Amino acid sequence: MSRQKKILLPESEMPTHWYNLNADLPAAGVELPPVLHPATGQPVGPDDLAPLFPMALILQEVTTDRYVEIPEPIREVYRMWRPTPLFRAYAWEQALDTPAQIYYKYEGVSPSGSHKPNTAVAQAYYNKQEGVKRLATETGAGQWGSALSFAAQIYGLECKVYMVRVSYDQKPYRRILMETYGAQVVPSPSPDTQAGRQVLEQDPDSPGSLGIAISEAVEDAATREDTKYSLGSVLNHVLLHQTVIGQETIRQLEIAGADWPDVVIACTGGGSNFGGLAFPFVRENIVAGRKTRILAAEPTASPSLTRGVYTYDFGDTAQMTPLIKMHTLGHDFVPPPIHAGGLRYHGMSAQVSALKEAGLIEAVALPQRAVFEAAVGFARAEGIVPAPESAHAVRAAMDEALAARESGQGRTIVFNLSGHGHFDLAAYDAYLSGQLVDYEYPQEAIEQSLQRLPQVD
Amino acid sequence: MSRQKKILLPESEMPTHWYNLNADLPAAGVELPPVLHPATGQPVGPDDLAPLFPMALILQEVTTDRYVEIPEPIREVYRMWRPTPLFRAYAWEQALDTPAQIYYKYEGVSPSGSHKPNTAVAQAYYNKQEGVKRLATETGAGQWGSALSFAAQIYGLECKVYMVRVSYDQKPYRRILMETYGAQVVPSPSPDTQAGRQVLEQDPDSPGSLGIAISEAVEDAATREDTKYSLGSVLNHVLLHQTVIGQETIRQLEIAGADWPDVVIACTGGGSNFGGLAFPFVRENIVAGRKTRILAAEPTASPSLTRGVYTYDFGDTAQMTPLIKMHTLGHDFVPPPIHAGGLRYHGMSAQVSALKEAGLIEAVALPQRAVFEAAVGFARAEGIVPAPESAHAVRAAMDEALAARESGQGRTIVFNLSGHGHFDLAAYDAYLSGQLVDYEYPQEAIEQSLQRLPQVD
Repeated sequence: MSRQKKILLPESEMPTHWYNLNADLPAAGVELPPVLHPATGQPVGPDDLAPLFPMALILQEVTTDRYVEIPEPIREVYRMWRPTPLFRAYAWEQALDTPAQIYYKYEGVSPSGSHKPNTAVAQAYYNKQEGVKRLATETGAGQWGSALSFAAQIYGLECKVYMVRVSYDQKPYRRILMETYGAQVVPSPSPDTQAGRQVLEQDPDSPGSLGIAISEAVEDAATREDTKYSLGSVLNHVLLHQTVIGQETIRQLEIAGADWPDVVIACTGGGSNFGGLAFPFVRENIVAGRKTRILAAEPTASPSLTRGVYTYDFGDTAQMTPLIKMHTLGHDFVPPPIHAGGLRYHGMSAQVSALKEAGLIEAVALPQRAVFEAAVGFARAEGIVPAPESAHAVRAAMDEALAARESGQGRTIVFNLSGHGHFDLAAYDAYLSGQLVDYEYPQEAIEQSLQRLPQVD
Repeated sequence: MSRQKKILLPESEMPTHWYNLNADLPAAGVELPPVLHPATGQPVGPDDLAPLFPMALILQEVTTDRYVEIPEPIREVYRMWRPTPLFRAYAWEQALDTPAQIYYKYEGVSPSGSHKPNTAVAQAYYNKQEGVKRLATETGAGQWGSALSFAAQIYGLECKVYMVRVSYDQKPYRRILMETYGAQVVPSPSPDTQAGRQVLEQDPDSPGSLGIAISEAVEDAATREDTKYSLGSVLNHVLLHQTVIGQETIRQLEIAGADWPDVVIACTGGGSNFGGLAFPFVRENIVAGRKTRILAAEPTASPSLTRGVYTYDFGDTAQMTPLIKMHTLGHDFVPPPIHAGGLRYHGMSAQVSALKEAGLIEAVALPQRAVFEAAVGFARAEGIVPAPESAHAVRAAMDEALAARESGQGRTIVFNLSGHGHFDLAAYDAYLSGQLVDYEYPQEAIEQSLQRLPQVD
């Protein structure tokens, strides 16, 4: 009679290697264009990145090795919360009255409450190995800043987080969490950097932006011998570290006796939780001839995969980063203030973009009211309150389940619940009280941003 | 090389029965005095309680069966988060430089983030079975209200939560969480009950109290045919439901190959998480001749076990409940505003009180600054930010670990981390910014409260 709700893996079955999608892209006929130096237009080399990142991460950024071994000290920290559980959504399936079987991987069990520590711990470890004493980073909604603060503390590194001022003021709990982990958190723009001072001179009350915060963190790292910069998404090595998610999921589905999934779903901002779940399934499609649909869920307010163009652009608003070929809305595109702060990004991971361009993945854009409707229904059935970002995957999974009900055909749906929403309940309050607004970005505004793309070639 | 961090149990090893301490108290020579009707001074019978509780719970309140079977539908809901993990605190042991081995049971993985759903789900289930449509309860800091809101939703019951106004205003996230689970939450005193209206007439700006909120919830249940009352601690059946914690822990320690614990620790407010972890160990002491020290950690601000008297008193301030023989500071004792809202209670579970009176358990009172010092150190080592209540157990465990370092002798320490502090970060902010104040309740004030005890016998 009793049905298994949680599929757990013992620590002994935690992945020993990260999976590198770049090794399998050639077999799918997909080319990953080089990252270019913004001044010369030439491919960047390791030396260009050395002021910002430790060499081990730079090498991981460009490696074509299919598997990269996870050092035992990182695995030891991972064991604080990994392997994470895979849940069968029995109650939600019943609430949706669907013949679909729904599984969700839950990354919210990590100390900081999302998938972000998977790469934060790895980045802190390699920095520590190379003698770095201090990390600088930016954070918007705070998921990434919390994860890096936790990871830095584990390895005895100092950590300074430039937090977008509007979030700093609106989300004090995120700031306090980072401080509890021992990090120094300042509102950005701050008087601590030249970039911050310039903004403050023109507008002492600037609410800040992720673009400004990145500029401050990069300047901090570039101008201090003891400090490196750390980024929570977009880059190859970040997505690499997240692939423990998908590898565990494949093993857990096997243990559950589930059918191979018909569709695998994750939300996408910069692409790290999507890549983490999806890339091991993409490999199965490429190498083993599976036919799983791989679906990225993004907000209509920041629709880079569904409405952006695939071209070279800066990773940041301030035009300080190398040029990456990706789906972009233009580096000075300012997304509307949706509650899923982690998805408010103009660009996208180069790997995810290349997969989309090659037709190996699909993407859907979702408005936030429909997203929170799904999240509340999920919370009432399954108990877990999703992070606003993760709620996009919840909605996409719900739509797949409803389509299954419509067609009367079962299907196996797997999605990544990348984090909990304990620090984002104001968004639920807005939804429940009918205050939540949908944003559809006007095509004209996107096209204006795209006119300011850098000229390459 | 790799050490096991988490000791997990498969769902198939989740306890099938709750353990009832009352069956083993006679073997220890401990008598549990009857609960008395406040008007007659006579022992209360099932009929006296029927307006407030379903008969199944009333019978569990008085049963002397050693084991009570957990119905499969409750076990199915438990499987959403149970069995909960037992962690070995390797990193914290290292930070404390102690030869002690420290294990902690983590109940914060439940949907609402604490041990409370263990009984909330059971209570909602039995109410549903007996045709109840609606539950009424009170909540202070919000852990209990969140748990009952979640449980009521699972079984399709309406839920109304009277939330102490000062918490309602200061902890909007807790209120939103309950509403996300579908509950109706009103600040107490409310205009919805006679008890509330009376208070509001005298003081429209009343900050409320747990005593007033209990009065409102009890009146709501007593005056509506479709509604029963639900309580989150103190009563025998509540502690009974929590004993899954200790049973799982014993099995997990066995799997870990740990020594039988030298000391078992939990915090105590009304006694439910303490009883949940400790009672199965108390049984081993009584029946199997073990010598485990069982330690209750309470706040100096509300020191019922360490400074109260063992006598009959009301469970609530408004003198509406039956009289329970317990350690009490007096029913009109108003604890100072410490951040561990769940421990701000004048009384104590009758079972826990009887154990303390018989010398079968120990108790220690801790000031909140020392408590938060321990909690921050724990969070920085183990990643999890403890709830302020649970942090009392963290401090007590730390003191045991430091004593082991002092004496140079190892010992095995087990404590219950009953919940996470994600909704309590303001307390951490106060600690980190040096604003936190310790409270030592003046003996004179306690003695004044004790002079107003009811006269029984």
